[in-house]
Amino acid sequence: MEANTYSSAGVNIEKAEHFVGRLKTSSRRAGHERLWKGAGGYASVVPIDDEIAMALTTDGVGTKLLVALEFEQLEGIGIDLVAMCANDLICVGAKPTAFLDYFATPKLDDAQADAIIQGIVEGCDQASMLLVGGETAELPGLYADKHFDLAGFAAGTVTRKTLITGDAIAPGDIVIGVASTGIHSNGLSLARKVIKEGDPMRKALLQPTAIYVKPVIEAMQRYSHSIKGLAHITGGGWRNLLRLNDQVGFSIDKPLALPPVFSHLLQHVDAEEMYKTFNMGMGLALIVNMHDAQIIQLFKDYGYSAAQIGTVTDKHGEVAIDAESHLGRPAKFTLKE
Amino acid sequence: MEANTYSSAGVNIEKAEHFVGRLKTSSRRAGHERLWKGAGGYASVVPIDDEIAMALTTDGVGTKLLVALEFEQLEGIGIDLVAMCANDLICVGAKPTAFLDYFATPKLDDAQADAIIQGIVEGCDQASMLLVGGETAELPGLYADKHFDLAGFAAGTVTRKTLITGDAIAPGDIVIGVASTGIHSNGLSLARKVIKEGDPMRKALLQPTAIYVKPVIEAMQRYSHSIKGLAHITGGGWRNLLRLNDQVGFSIDKPLALPPVFSHLLQHVDAEEMYKTFNMGMGLALIVNMHDAQIIQLFKDYGYSAAQIGTVTDKHGEVAIDAESHLGRPAKFTLKE
Repeated sequence: MEANTYSSAGVNIEKAEHFVGRLKTSSRRAGHERLWKGAGGYASVVPIDDEIAMALTTDGVGTKLLVALEFEQLEGIGIDLVAMCANDLICVGAKPTAFLDYFATPKLDDAQADAIIQGIVEGCDQASMLLVGGETAELPGLYADKHFDLAGFAAGTVTRKTLITGDAIAPGDIVIGVASTGIHSNGLSLARKVIKEGDPMRKALLQPTAIYVKPVIEAMQRYSHSIKGLAHITGGGWRNLLRLNDQVGFSIDKPLALPPVFSHLLQHVDAEEMYKTFNMGMGLALIVNMHDAQIIQLFKDYGYSAAQIGTVTDKHGEVAIDAESHLGRPAKFTLKE
Repeated sequence: MEANTYSSAGVNIEKAEHFVGRLKTSSRRAGHERLWKGAGGYASVVPIDDEIAMALTTDGVGTKLLVALEFEQLEGIGIDLVAMCANDLICVGAKPTAFLDYFATPKLDDAQADAIIQGIVEGCDQASMLLVGGETAELPGLYADKHFDLAGFAAGTVTRKTLITGDAIAPGDIVIGVASTGIHSNGLSLARKVIKEGDPMRKALLQPTAIYVKPVIEAMQRYSHSIKGLAHITGGGWRNLLRLNDQVGFSIDKPLALPPVFSHLLQHVDAEEMYKTFNMGMGLALIVNMHDAQIIQLFKDYGYSAAQIGTVTDKHGEVAIDAESHLGRPAKFTLKE
């Protein structure tokens, strides 16, 4: 088996985290103590007064852009862009309200731009957000030929009462997994390396990211006291769970069904590396202390597969995984930060 | 004289506006009627309740990045990024509060990243904003070698009372110009074409953009009823004034002193094209109906040159310019949208 890792695909997660670390240090300055702490740091929560705050986040779609360009199929990328931001906002308990995009290209191409904007509008509809603005920059000389970049910025509101901090998560709580639609927008650098051009599976990488806003907003309205944490599973894979609360661990023994793209990737990538990089069929996890059957049903009513997949443990900093149902052979391993 | 225009430099403003037009059409949908109208569309104003709203904007620094890379001098670019967003927010009367950056690079370089982040932190200090988050994306294959891109997102708050709509602007009002520090972050594609590598003036293109937040916030607190409009002079040059109110025009007969970089550019670029592309020494314009001497003094106290440069007229859609003091010869012309 080849040593296919995220690092070998040209992405240096440690270096990126080092940079983010320096960012945080520089942010640990006067004024930052008044920010509210939102679970997992999925969004920055900036208070407006004692009761209400803005939740803000930014994200891109990474090298999924390159796959979209390869197939000249850009519609889904706009949905991905909105999804990456909107799914982050809901993790702190915020209601997404407004989206802005940054679109930079060496030379504006009407058809390209139209396809992207159509996807962004569709994504905003799915996320119940308004597309309120954006910046379109024509930057000759900056990008590789015919390439472009996209960044998204989303804002929402959250109150003291609806804010999810993750602090209430405790051993014994239930973990609900909500199905992803495929690879979403993370781990594409590695996936592109493994699933080569010409491979029939390559186009499956383009499946747009699921947007979980509507069921989550409804779940928070109906079962607010039961929902203790939400984890959008992005880069870092299932380790994202550990962002929610550093006093607990997680045991996942009944994972959701694995989309075919991951079975394909498993032929070439080490299993543990897979769970550290990809969503492995779970785009969102909820930590709840009751009402799990109703919440699961609510997601199903919106068309998303969902199930109880595990529990919260006292082994802090560890995600214990029983992957037998995914791998078709006994397979247990433990992910750490 | 060469026909140096923004278009010949590879930037198609009409096409960009066409794209933005389609964006607006797609935005003219259910829900958008509840947004508040902020003067000039400098920021999107999303109400939280009847009294308070979020002001949101996004921007990049354009091809100024390429000049910074050429000189391997990236510190100022972070300031430019914050400036482009913060100066937009204050034009709708908002108080900037939070900033997020999107930084995408083919391969993270610590020294590069540190220089950029240092500039962003410095810019946020100047703009009284907190740097609350960001996204660092390592995207092998998307950018030209050693290149990267930066986008900024800024959020602020504005109340019904402090919102500037531009509607109150009327003929007879006074136009105050506030000095720019140089070319700021607009028109660089054209400037790079004209001021070639090796030209001693080329490095002057890197002078960071002025951040007008502190004096403007103080002016709005002290003279709120006098300030009817603010125009951040960006791409489109002095035509930016016309964004504030479509029922009036402007007459500018005593422009501020011209920074040397523009005198240099004037040797190669048509004068009218210059005023349609660059800030021509004025980074910010205020439309006031009184207190002009006090407001001018306030900007001077903060270290910015400022002066009454003209008046509001009834010739709607027109900016009449007497540029004799800039060009050293009689020169009058009229810019239209």
